[in-house]
Amino acid sequence: MKQTELKTPYLIFLGDAEDFLMAKVAKGIAHWRPQKCLGQMRLSGAKADLGITEMSIAEAAAKGAKTFILGLAPIGGTLPHAWLSILIEAMESGMDIASGLHIQLNQNSDLVAVAKRTGQQMIDVRHPQLTLECATGAKRSGKRLLTVGSDCCVGKMFTTLAIHQELQRRSINATFRATGQTGILIEGDGVPIDAIVSDFIAGAVEQLSPDNHPQHWDIIEGQGSLFHPAYAGVSLGLLHGAQADVIILCHEAGRTQMDLMDGFPVPDFATLIETNLQLGRLTNPNIRLGGIALNTSAMEEGEALAEIARYQALYGVPVVDPVRTGVTLIVDAMEL
Amino acid sequence: MKQTELKTPYLIFLGDAEDFLMAKVAKGIAHWRPQKCLGQMRLSGAKADLGITEMSIAEAAAKGAKTFILGLAPIGGTLPHAWLSILIEAMESGMDIASGLHIQLNQNSDLVAVAKRTGQQMIDVRHPQLTLECATGAKRSGKRLLTVGSDCCVGKMFTTLAIHQELQRRSINATFRATGQTGILIEGDGVPIDAIVSDFIAGAVEQLSPDNHPQHWDIIEGQGSLFHPAYAGVSLGLLHGAQADVIILCHEAGRTQMDLMDGFPVPDFATLIETNLQLGRLTNPNIRLGGIALNTSAMEEGEALAEIARYQALYGVPVVDPVRTGVTLIVDAMEL
Repeated sequence: MKQTELKTPYLIFLGDAEDFLMAKVAKGIAHWRPQKCLGQMRLSGAKADLGITEMSIAEAAAKGAKTFILGLAPIGGTLPHAWLSILIEAMESGMDIASGLHIQLNQNSDLVAVAKRTGQQMIDVRHPQLTLECATGAKRSGKRLLTVGSDCCVGKMFTTLAIHQELQRRSINATFRATGQTGILIEGDGVPIDAIVSDFIAGAVEQLSPDNHPQHWDIIEGQGSLFHPAYAGVSLGLLHGAQADVIILCHEAGRTQMDLMDGFPVPDFATLIETNLQLGRLTNPNIRLGGIALNTSAMEEGEALAEIARYQALYGVPVVDPVRTGVTLIVDAMEL
Repeated sequence: MKQTELKTPYLIFLGDAEDFLMAKVAKGIAHWRPQKCLGQMRLSGAKADLGITEMSIAEAAAKGAKTFILGLAPIGGTLPHAWLSILIEAMESGMDIASGLHIQLNQNSDLVAVAKRTGQQMIDVRHPQLTLECATGAKRSGKRLLTVGSDCCVGKMFTTLAIHQELQRRSINATFRATGQTGILIEGDGVPIDAIVSDFIAGAVEQLSPDNHPQHWDIIEGQGSLFHPAYAGVSLGLLHGAQADVIILCHEAGRTQMDLMDGFPVPDFATLIETNLQLGRLTNPNIRLGGIALNTSAMEEGEALAEIARYQALYGVPVVDPVRTGVTLIVDAMEL
C-alpha cells in the first residue's frame, strides 16, 4: 500500500557535488537521521561533506549498508556512465538503491536487469507505486498536525521534522509523515504527494496517516500553499486528507512575493490563517491554529526576535523560528 | 501537448448494453455531436439504441468512419474476447480506437501489435499522454467560463455543453473544453483532469485553455466541488488554472447529502458561492458568479419552477435548469 520502506543503514552518495545546496537531500538525512547513516561516498572533485565516515561501496557493504541513497541530481540531468557503474556495484554488493531523482531508475533497462539478477530493489521515491484509493473523509483515530505554508520553500519540512524531534525528546508517541522526496528519503517512508494522480490526493494522505492510538500524533509534512497558483490543489487535498487537529503556518519573514511566481504577492496573513481553517473544517471541524513558524534566516538576531514578537502579538499563538528559537513553545501548546 | 484529437466521423459501439445508463457516454456523443456520429454498432442482446443508423464495421469503414468509440465498460471489467476481435477488425478497417475505459488498450499487447501493424491509434482518454507543465498563473487573453459544483454528478458537463451550444447558436466564437472522459469523447479533445499528476492540475488547465482572441469564450467543464472531501484539490486546481471570468454554480435541487460521502452534507449555498469566488480571485480578481444551474429532474414542474424562482430571489443571478428551461438567461447575462 505504502511506499516501500527503506532498509537501514544507508550509504549516502554525494557524487561530485560542489556545495551543500546541491547536496541538500544528503544533508537533510545526515542532520535528521544520523543514526541511519553509515557513511558517505564522494567522487573526486566533491566539496560537499557530511562530516561522516568516508567509505567505498565495498567497505560500506562489509559494514552492513542496506540502502544506497542517490539524493542529488547529476549535472545535465542524465545519469553519467560512472554513476551507472556505481549503482550496479552497489546492487551487486547487496544494497537497494533509493533515488530522489526525476529520472526513473526503473526505466533504465541495464539497471533493471541488475536489480532482477541481484534481487535488490530500486526505489524511485518521486514515482510512487501505490495502490491508490479515493478519500472517504471518514474520521480516523489518533491526532494529527499538518504544516501549511504561505508559499513553497518557507521551511515546512524543517518545521515538521523539528516538531517531531521535540515530541520524541519528550517520549510522546509520534510519527513523521513525509510527503516530498527529501522527507521520504529522510524518514525512509512516505508518499510523494505532488506525484500522485489528482483524484487520489486526499486519499493518499488518508493512507499515509491511517487510524492510530488515540494519543498518537502524526506530524504531517505540508506542501505548497492554498494561495499558490500552481500547487494549491495539492495543498487543499493534503489539508482535507490530513484531517488536521492542528495546523502550523510556516512563512519566511519578510517575503512579500510568491517564490518564482511573478505578479503573485504573498497573501495577507490573517486571510491565510482563516482560509486554511475554514477549508480544513470540512474534514475536521475542530481544526485549530497551533502556532506560526517563521523562517527568519535572512534577518539579524534583534530584527528576527522583534518580528517573532510582532507575529505573536498579532495572532495570539506561539510563534517560533525552528532554527533560531526551536519549537518548544509550539509543542508546549499542543495539548498533548 | 494536448490529448490527441479524435478523427471524425465516429462509429459508436454500444456492445450489449441493456439500458441507457450503461450507454451514457454513447448517448452523450449522439446528443451533443450528432454530426460526428456516422452510425452505431450493437451486439445481440443490446437494448440501448441511439436511434442512428445501425452498421457493421465493414459498412462504417466503407462510408468513411475514422474512429471507433468504445465508451462503455464491459460487465466484469475485463475486455471480452469478442470485443477484442471487434477492436482489431476496426483497426484493420482503418479506424482509430478511442476508449473511455479504465482498462488501458495501450497495455494490451495484442491490440498494440495490431495498432502498430495498421498504423492506427488507440487513444485511452482516461490516461493522458501529455507533456505536462506547472501553471504559471500568467493572465491569458480571451474569456473563460467554468462550471463549479456543490458536489459531483449535479450536471456540470451538461450545463457546460448547453451553454456552449447556445453560444454557437448565437454565432459567438466559443470552444467547449472537456475535463472528463465523457466530455472528451463528446468533443474529441480535452484533458482528463482527475488523471493528471497533482503537481500539474492548474498547469494542465492552462494548457487546455490557452491564449485566444479577446472576444473568444472557453466554456470549461468543471469537476467535483471545493467541498468534496476526496476531490476538492482537483476542483481548486481547475478553478486556478481556468482563471475564470465567470463561474456557473451547478447543483441538484433538493440534494442535502454529498453523493456517496456519508456524513458530509451539501455545503451552505452562500458559502459555496463565496468560497469559489474568494479562491478564484487568486488568478482572476474579476471573477464573478454568472448564474446557477439547478438540476430539478426529480421535481414536478410547479415545484421546480418555484425552486428556480427561490434561488433567483436569494442570489440575484440568472437561475436555470438547463434541461427544463434552457440556458438562455445565463448566456444573456454573460456580457458577450
